[in-house]
Amino acid sequence: MSEKTIKIGLCGFGIVGQGVYSHLTGKQAFLREQLGATLEVARIAVRDLQKPRDVAVSSSLLTTDPMSIAEDSEIDILCELMGGTGLALDVTLAALRSGKVVVTANKALLCDHGAEVFTAAAEGGGHVLFEASVAGGIPVIKAINEGLIINDFTSIYGILNGTCNYILTRMTNEGLSYEEILKEAKELGYAEADESLDVDGIDATHKAVILAYLAHGRWVPFKDVLVQGITAVKQDDIAFAQENEYAIKLIAVIDRIHSNEKLYVSVFPTLVSKGYSLGNVDGVFNAISIHGDVVGQTVYVGPGAGRDATASAVIADIVDAAKHLIYGGSERRFPFLDPAPSNGETIELAEPSDIHSRYYVRLLVMDQPGVMAEIASVLASREVSLASISQKEVGGNATKASLFITTHKTSEQAIFDAMNDLEALASVEEKPFCMPIGAFKE
Amino acid sequence: MSEKTIKIGLCGFGIVGQGVYSHLTGKQAFLREQLGATLEVARIAVRDLQKPRDVAVSSSLLTTDPMSIAEDSEIDILCELMGGTGLALDVTLAALRSGKVVVTANKALLCDHGAEVFTAAAEGGGHVLFEASVAGGIPVIKAINEGLIINDFTSIYGILNGTCNYILTRMTNEGLSYEEILKEAKELGYAEADESLDVDGIDATHKAVILAYLAHGRWVPFKDVLVQGITAVKQDDIAFAQENEYAIKLIAVIDRIHSNEKLYVSVFPTLVSKGYSLGNVDGVFNAISIHGDVVGQTVYVGPGAGRDATASAVIADIVDAAKHLIYGGSERRFPFLDPAPSNGETIELAEPSDIHSRYYVRLLVMDQPGVMAEIASVLASREVSLASISQKEVGGNATKASLFITTHKTSEQAIFDAMNDLEALASVEEKPFCMPIGAFKE
Repeated sequence: MSEKTIKIGLCGFGIVGQGVYSHLTGKQAFLREQLGATLEVARIAVRDLQKPRDVAVSSSLLTTDPMSIAEDSEIDILCELMGGTGLALDVTLAALRSGKVVVTANKALLCDHGAEVFTAAAEGGGHVLFEASVAGGIPVIKAINEGLIINDFTSIYGILNGTCNYILTRMTNEGLSYEEILKEAKELGYAEADESLDVDGIDATHKAVILAYLAHGRWVPFKDVLVQGITAVKQDDIAFAQENEYAIKLIAVIDRIHSNEKLYVSVFPTLVSKGYSLGNVDGVFNAISIHGDVVGQTVYVGPGAGRDATASAVIADIVDAAKHLIYGGSERRFPFLDPAPSNGETIELAEPSDIHSRYYVRLLVMDQPGVMAEIASVLASREVSLASISQKEVGGNATKASLFITTHKTSEQAIFDAMNDLEALASVEEKPFCMPIGAFKE
Repeated sequence: MSEKTIKIGLCGFGIVGQGVYSHLTGKQAFLREQLGATLEVARIAVRDLQKPRDVAVSSSLLTTDPMSIAEDSEIDILCELMGGTGLALDVTLAALRSGKVVVTANKALLCDHGAEVFTAAAEGGGHVLFEASVAGGIPVIKAINEGLIINDFTSIYGILNGTCNYILTRMTNEGLSYEEILKEAKELGYAEADESLDVDGIDATHKAVILAYLAHGRWVPFKDVLVQGITAVKQDDIAFAQENEYAIKLIAVIDRIHSNEKLYVSVFPTLVSKGYSLGNVDGVFNAISIHGDVVGQTVYVGPGAGRDATASAVIADIVDAAKHLIYGGSERRFPFLDPAPSNGETIELAEPSDIHSRYYVRLLVMDQPGVMAEIASVLASREVSLASISQKEVGGNATKASLFITTHKTSEQAIFDAMNDLEALASVEEKPFCMPIGAFKE
């Protein structure tokens, strides 16, 4: 019996946890046929035993102590769906150190403590699977780890946060402001009460850091990622994009530059050509373009969040773990679950002076003689070369004007220096906004 | 030593075989680090020992007898890259019956002999892996088999033949005729000397049959798939598509209909909305939209053919096989390599009367009184309801006119009956052309 039943403990029983439970139990017969074994949800850790839930479970499964699941020798697979980086970390480490498989959707945890988590797994004989942590239901981690195993990943570009993409899409299609759409999205429950994790690019950065580790073997510290969210994007920028056949997308870049010597990770609003694969991915969808040195470009699109899409990925990991636990050798050793090159930590991170791109800049300026010359002179002093410039009146205000500038290729360092210089000018009325014009490998 | 070296035999050393060899040997150190074992190409079957090749190999590896590789007890993994369904079948069956892993890119073989191949594998203790057989470098078989394991696949839509997509894209972008582009593609080596396999939809059908098996467990006989290629597509159709915000794509459909009771497989030129994910996939790229009952829609785009893209998929299978051979249990039993539901063969195939769609019809008719009434009457008698109709003069010929009709939803049976009736009319000058207007699940 113990040979033929894989016991699963769910830590966290919110939206995703309930989705995992529903689909695992709803398709138990199918899974039994496939695996020749039963997947049994044996324990569930919740915060409140009395809380009414959409999914009914026997109260005998419930506990309020997730650590007791991590320490339960009967449990083979622990699903960490609590979120956060406090108790969730303790539970994850304890489970891994006792040789369990941990299946997690917790991107913040992996981003902040990935090295510690993987070390605990290696030392304890446990394994960590995390398909659900990036791009929800899209099996992109499996693609990188297994389907594209022979490739060096020269570039990965991703739309990794559905909330941001939803807001940018509605700003584009409906002409509404960021603030209006965010307010409505919160009312409808599409955005969190504290939206910062999404709209400031933090969630997308967590995922970018995981992808960078997968592809290159280095845990890039969050603080070393250049991150900007979408809160500064205005209708003026959307209009500029549309007039020029671009879409604005929050793009995560994981790039090897300087002949693969350095690794660059960033999350930034970006002008994406409508002719490029990511330029047409709208709404809550996520998308990832992966460039491999052997295969070329492959693109993956799908739902990046939601109860069922996330559950689909969590269950794929559970089944992968189960088949190794059932069919694997006596050591229950997993092949390939830490796929990154072992020398990854020696890869140097790129500096802003290493990165070159074209940029779009929007400025609000005093509409008076000499301003344009002053701005052009600042840009020239930073060796930023103008490609185009246009001026627009600011509605109902004859004293101010909006300037829209595109540059030729320049370094990230130069453009940021120039932005700081511009902000300091008396004639510049608000913090300048800039974003790269994406030049994606195809 | 034998414990730590996996021996691979390549049967076929053309473009793809040479790609596999190059990348396996070029990244041998990386693979050794990952696997803790060496992947060694130990034998290569070629047709001509003397033929000069781009990739240099020791002549001691070469044989002209692929069957000797299938029968070589030292070989763990046989890559069948010869193509065809004669000797390739014999070699595949022999290898599987002797318990080897066969990695194959041969879609024709699987389509025509899939049941026999999988039976041989099950009986002989062998395994067959075939990521490269569908959509080249895109790891879509792994996605269906593993990443989306908990899903029932309600619909799969695919652009599965890069040559057709390349021709249709150039017809759209450059206004050239099918014949002009085909001629040039042949000269450049993009299309085979005998293009029929591609442009008649045969290759796409082979792949659709494999996807249907993977998703639903039934090997649909080729003859039961409704197939039409792209040879009848004209600039008139391209123009109609563009005017109405469609693209014409050769779309493979693998659909469960009538509340999942029946299975429908077809390959047909299709009007695809530019707003739909597959509507913007141009050139030689392949794309597959997979709809799962749990995850929703996920889309996969990438190179569907070519030396390196195909090699990327073949090597992914080799590595998957190797890690199970190295780390698997003493039985070397693979989990999940025959993932289809065991009751698949009982699924009924849909009849043309089961399928309902809107259609586009192009007719070349005599431009004379009464013709329109005659055509409308034929359509009415088959209960095909018109949604729109337009007439265009045929350049330089006052006696003929092109008619462009779109219908409301009608059965496939009704539209085909109507097409036959129309073709029989004296006033209809050439075989009518029709294609469905795609109504894809999103």
